[in-house]
Amino acid sequence: MEFSSFLTSLGTSFLIFIVLMLLFAWLSGKPGNSVIYYPNRILKGLDPKEGGSRTRNPFAWIHEAMSSTEQDVISASGYDTAVYFVFLSTVLGILVLSGLVLLPVLLPVAATDVGVKIAKTTSNGTFSNLDKLSMGNVKEKSSRLWAFLLATYWVSFVTYFLLWKAYKHVSGLRADALMSPEVRAEQFAILVRDIPPVPEGQTRKEQVDSYFKRIYPESFYRSMLVTNNKVVNKLWEELEGYKKKLARAEAVYALSKKTGKPEGARPTNRIGFLGLIGKKVDSIEYYNEKINEVTPKLESEQKDTLREKQLDAALVFFSSRVAAASAAQSLHAQMVDKWTVTDAPEFRQMIWTNLKIKFFQRQVRQYVIYIVVALTIVFFMIPIAFISAFTTLENLKKYLPFLKPIVDIDAIKTVLEAYLPQLALIIFLALLPKLLYSLSKAEGIPSEGHVVRAASGKYFYFIVLNVFIGVTVGGTLFSTFKDIKKDPDSIPDLLAAGLPVNATFFITFVALRFFVGYGLELSRIIPLIIFHLKRKYLCKTEAEVKEAWHPGDLRYGTRFPGDMLIVTIVLCYSVIAPIIIPFGVVYFGLGWLILRNQALKVYVPAYESYGRMWPHMHKRILAALIIYQLTMFGYFGAKQFIYVPLLLPAIILSLIFGYVCSKKFYRFFRDTALEVACRDLKEIPNMEQVFRSYITPSLSSDKIEDDQFEDALSQVSRSTSFV
Amino acid sequence: MEFSSFLTSLGTSFLIFIVLMLLFAWLSGKPGNSVIYYPNRILKGLDPKEGGSRTRNPFAWIHEAMSSTEQDVISASGYDTAVYFVFLSTVLGILVLSGLVLLPVLLPVAATDVGVKIAKTTSNGTFSNLDKLSMGNVKEKSSRLWAFLLATYWVSFVTYFLLWKAYKHVSGLRADALMSPEVRAEQFAILVRDIPPVPEGQTRKEQVDSYFKRIYPESFYRSMLVTNNKVVNKLWEELEGYKKKLARAEAVYALSKKTGKPEGARPTNRIGFLGLIGKKVDSIEYYNEKINEVTPKLESEQKDTLREKQLDAALVFFSSRVAAASAAQSLHAQMVDKWTVTDAPEFRQMIWTNLKIKFFQRQVRQYVIYIVVALTIVFFMIPIAFISAFTTLENLKKYLPFLKPIVDIDAIKTVLEAYLPQLALIIFLALLPKLLYSLSKAEGIPSEGHVVRAASGKYFYFIVLNVFIGVTVGGTLFSTFKDIKKDPDSIPDLLAAGLPVNATFFITFVALRFFVGYGLELSRIIPLIIFHLKRKYLCKTEAEVKEAWHPGDLRYGTRFPGDMLIVTIVLCYSVIAPIIIPFGVVYFGLGWLILRNQALKVYVPAYESYGRMWPHMHKRILAALIIYQLTMFGYFGAKQFIYVPLLLPAIILSLIFGYVCSKKFYRFFRDTALEVACRDLKEIPNMEQVFRSYITPSLSSDKIEDDQFEDALSQVSRSTSFV
Repeated sequence: MEFSSFLTSLGTSFLIFIVLMLLFAWLSGKPGNSVIYYPNRILKGLDPKEGGSRTRNPFAWIHEAMSSTEQDVISASGYDTAVYFVFLSTVLGILVLSGLVLLPVLLPVAATDVGVKIAKTTSNGTFSNLDKLSMGNVKEKSSRLWAFLLATYWVSFVTYFLLWKAYKHVSGLRADALMSPEVRAEQFAILVRDIPPVPEGQTRKEQVDSYFKRIYPESFYRSMLVTNNKVVNKLWEELEGYKKKLARAEAVYALSKKTGKPEGARPTNRIGFLGLIGKKVDSIEYYNEKINEVTPKLESEQKDTLREKQLDAALVFFSSRVAAASAAQSLHAQMVDKWTVTDAPEFRQMIWTNLKIKFFQRQVRQYVIYIVVALTIVFFMIPIAFISAFTTLENLKKYLPFLKPIVDIDAIKTVLEAYLPQLALIIFLALLPKLLYSLSKAEGIPSEGHVVRAASGKYFYFIVLNVFIGVTVGGTLFSTFKDIKKDPDSIPDLLAAGLPVNATFFITFVALRFFVGYGLELSRIIPLIIFHLKRKYLCKTEAEVKEAWHPGDLRYGTRFPGDMLIVTIVLCYSVIAPIIIPFGVVYFGLGWLILRNQALKVYVPAYESYGRMWPHMHKRILAALIIYQLTMFGYFGAKQFIYVPLLLPAIILSLIFGYVCSKKFYRFFRDTALEVACRDLKEIPNMEQVFRSYITPSLSSDKIEDDQFEDALSQVSRSTSFV
Repeated sequence: MEFSSFLTSLGTSFLIFIVLMLLFAWLSGKPGNSVIYYPNRILKGLDPKEGGSRTRNPFAWIHEAMSSTEQDVISASGYDTAVYFVFLSTVLGILVLSGLVLLPVLLPVAATDVGVKIAKTTSNGTFSNLDKLSMGNVKEKSSRLWAFLLATYWVSFVTYFLLWKAYKHVSGLRADALMSPEVRAEQFAILVRDIPPVPEGQTRKEQVDSYFKRIYPESFYRSMLVTNNKVVNKLWEELEGYKKKLARAEAVYALSKKTGKPEGARPTNRIGFLGLIGKKVDSIEYYNEKINEVTPKLESEQKDTLREKQLDAALVFFSSRVAAASAAQSLHAQMVDKWTVTDAPEFRQMIWTNLKIKFFQRQVRQYVIYIVVALTIVFFMIPIAFISAFTTLENLKKYLPFLKPIVDIDAIKTVLEAYLPQLALIIFLALLPKLLYSLSKAEGIPSEGHVVRAASGKYFYFIVLNVFIGVTVGGTLFSTFKDIKKDPDSIPDLLAAGLPVNATFFITFVALRFFVGYGLELSRIIPLIIFHLKRKYLCKTEAEVKEAWHPGDLRYGTRFPGDMLIVTIVLCYSVIAPIIIPFGVVYFGLGWLILRNQALKVYVPAYESYGRMWPHMHKRILAALIIYQLTMFGYFGAKQFIYVPLLLPAIILSLIFGYVCSKKFYRFFRDTALEVACRDLKEIPNMEQVFRSYITPSLSSDKIEDDQFEDALSQVSRSTSFV
């Protein structure tokens, strides 16, 4: 890639960023848009414009984000978001500390070497200034390579140090969250699966109750059997749908009274396919009728579900946090595949449909899905390698000669050259997360957060293996394919030549990600447009409007693998082409700043896992470090540096570091430590309320009396047991 | 090996066996020997000669052993011994079921083939009748190999079926043991290690008590700090030594009154080095003096130890079994390397000196020892291969020509040929267990039984890898070393030729083991001789005599790897040379019978782990099966059988079977299931007694009042807490 196209790419990205920033400053000031730019605050009942925003200073948000504390983030967006910021600032710290040493030391060392002629690059072969600053400019076997070797160690030690500190900090955050004096329902419950068949002469409820009462005579409170809610959920959704439509019809009617004739125009609809064909009816009457028709059906189905459709899973409630935490960790049955316990997920995280999957089926599903994902990763590598090789202009012209006239126009050429490969990548990557999410869900995991973490892990391997390794190796190999055929032994030499050249590609990739990606993130142009369109043409009731602007989650599950790709790229090139470090710093610095604003004012967390994502983050940063060390090992080898075995201790050290961390910290992220769970609560927990918070809306009804629940939900064991 | 030398070997072994059996029948009838042949019954206070022995029928013991139930074994020798019999009968079952199909099917198939000329055997190259019955006699690529392939699967399925049944059975035994209504102290305690430094202004005792009282306000009973007992133990042993010597001196004096002059001869001793030099003193006076001198020292050291020498480990006692079982499985501290808990070993299993080793030091020690053992295994393989190759007579004559005249004498030649290689092996193997035991102990394991299991596992790998693979591969390679140098590609062919030939070696090895080994075991010639010598020349007091005949443990830890060697050998050759199966059946049948007698009448278990050895046994039988499948895979390959990939599913099936078993059953062998621990006891446990049973003898003294223990042992939390 030529230097000029590199600058063009940077320049364009920066321009887009500036435009988006200006848009944000302008749009966020308008009162009608505050539901888009301050939804978190509005939902919390706070004044959206509190603080600097009132002064209309367009940069006030920067000051607010910078001066916010971790506690502010926790109270606005929860612990998981705070942990995501620990990730951002840890990576930022690693890059800053690395850059502070690597840039002033390595750039002069590389630039002042006499330089070696590098094998043909993917562009015209002109040797740009950028490439002069990279390790590619250092001669083979040169003693200058010592500086790069030491730099590799420096980056490793910085990473160990900051990761250790971060793990300790996050462990503390998690402890704070779990020992909080607030009553949180999930801390009083455990999830029991694989309950054996009901013995003769007992109901499922009696079986579960007697089992747990016997083991926990004092702390057992009550159990709730999990039922198959498919039918009842469908009925309930139907009913809710009619209720919404009724509200909507009433709103339309009220509006027509105000705007049109004083008696109003009663809204009508057709009852056929999609409301397009069939008889025309009065909507309000029709929906009222429907509601009256469905309600008794739902009620009888509710009773039926509770009595007949019990599954072999249950939630068991305890009267103290310690009892629940301890029960969730203990083996209950002699056979491990019976009465399996885990701590209960939050109600909003429960994946009820997965609860009926049996122990060994879960194991089988897990392995099958691992294999499927591994195959997907391996077989996507091939197209990716082709994409990255094809989408350089050189290759386009070569293989698709009819494009030549268009591509040769200077302006188009520069822009295409700058963006084509990166765009191809970004579009490809956007298609994946959904697939991985459904695959992870199919493993039989009972909690939403866990599924997100599992999917995120798969996405990480996908991105890193395919994009990073695919582009580096594929791009290099492809562009020099003929040379290899002539002389296969030259592969290491080609890689040695290819690695620094790819650096420019990745720098523009990073820059595109932060300027355009974060610009769009902050300005929220797309949600804004969608919201205004919806409000104008679709929303009739208050509830519908509220739904239209609901900001959703930060979605760190998909954000994080993207960030990890940047971490991997920047780490791997940090020593080879240290000039990439500032770009990485800007990516994470800007990311931290903009997401801080979004976390404080925009996004609303969908669930809370108290930092369970951190061990994944930690492991993956470490994996990136090891990939980096391996890359350096290979690259030093290709540079014929005879002291390259001195890098092996670094790799072993990384493995030991990972082992020690997981030994020391990990189990607390899986199980609740009892010393944490035994802290006092601020009030005696209202167990009835804790219990009721786990009743699915489709099963909860004012008309259903408690004694009708009896079949699925056990009675209070002793009314005074929870003191 | 020639057929005649094979028969000689068998004949000699059988002769020795008959002689030992006759000796047993004669000696066990003599009343003076009953402490050697019935010590278990005597120690239990039962009549040693009850049942058939009274009739002087020398084969009554066989009837008694056959008719004894598992419950008899459990009450005589405990659960661990019963589990060892499950192992023996499972292996016996596998071999019998395999033999019933393999012998009638495979022998004719092999014997009726035209036969191939096999490469030079280790003997004169005469092709014996035995070799004709093996798979070596089947031609390459022959369709007869199908029978052998199916036989391989039959053996595998028999193994899966019996192993599954056995695991289920042992799991039930363990559950029975753990839910027994007897009060067993270790079920009420947990072992806590890695207690963090004492906070300012607290004692260690207060720290531990407040920590556990807070988490278990209702079930915590009391804690006992572990102290460094080195000095106090030394003093206590010194005192006990003097007490014994005093008793001995008094016995000698009493005897002299009876036999010599009526006033008696007061015994004297010298106080210098080993009682050989120095001043002569009156023994009774001298030892009394010494006891009076050491006793106060011991008492003050006891107080000192309890107050000053507390380590960062403790035993914590709970008032119920469920509470203790649950506590032992739960994470207590936020950092996993602090307050680590495990269930408490029995008092007699405690390895107090290991308790002070820190969390990460234990990890490091473990890995270091794994590496040491792995290196030992690898580097012992070389000498073993040489031993087995050298100690064939052929080679002895070749490399040590001066032995030729002796070796050529016919009688000596036959005996030597029969025993030389086996003896070399057996002697070598006898040296190992001690080393592996100390290595395992150095890992920092807190319980004796666990150390024995760990050592046993190492011993298994040692034996199987070195003996089996070493002899097979080494022996074959060595004897044909020159051929290989000529043509390295012929290695598979050589192995194919060598495997069946080695079968004869292993058959004689197995026969030697069961005839001589079990003959010695039953007749107890060596303990008998030692006992009579000791009683005659050394023992003066009743206690000394009792010590002299104390039978000790069954030592399944070292017995089991030896058995596993036989299992591995017989399994591996079961299809190649099915004639080995009857020898395996006799080994395990005879073993079962003779050890049943020993378990019922002789050995006294040193500790009880409630069948924790079983998962190891299970895993190792499965490992032997996989080694067998791999051997068959290689051997079929060497026979150029093109359907050999059909064996791969068997190997995968074994891995899946192992995975499923360990998932379903294993955790219950590590942790106590709460549904088992919650069974009712036959009486309210006397917690004071439970607590006192863990006080080391060197620290327990009538003179030390309970309040002096206060520093290390916490007070009863609430006197009524254990109802």
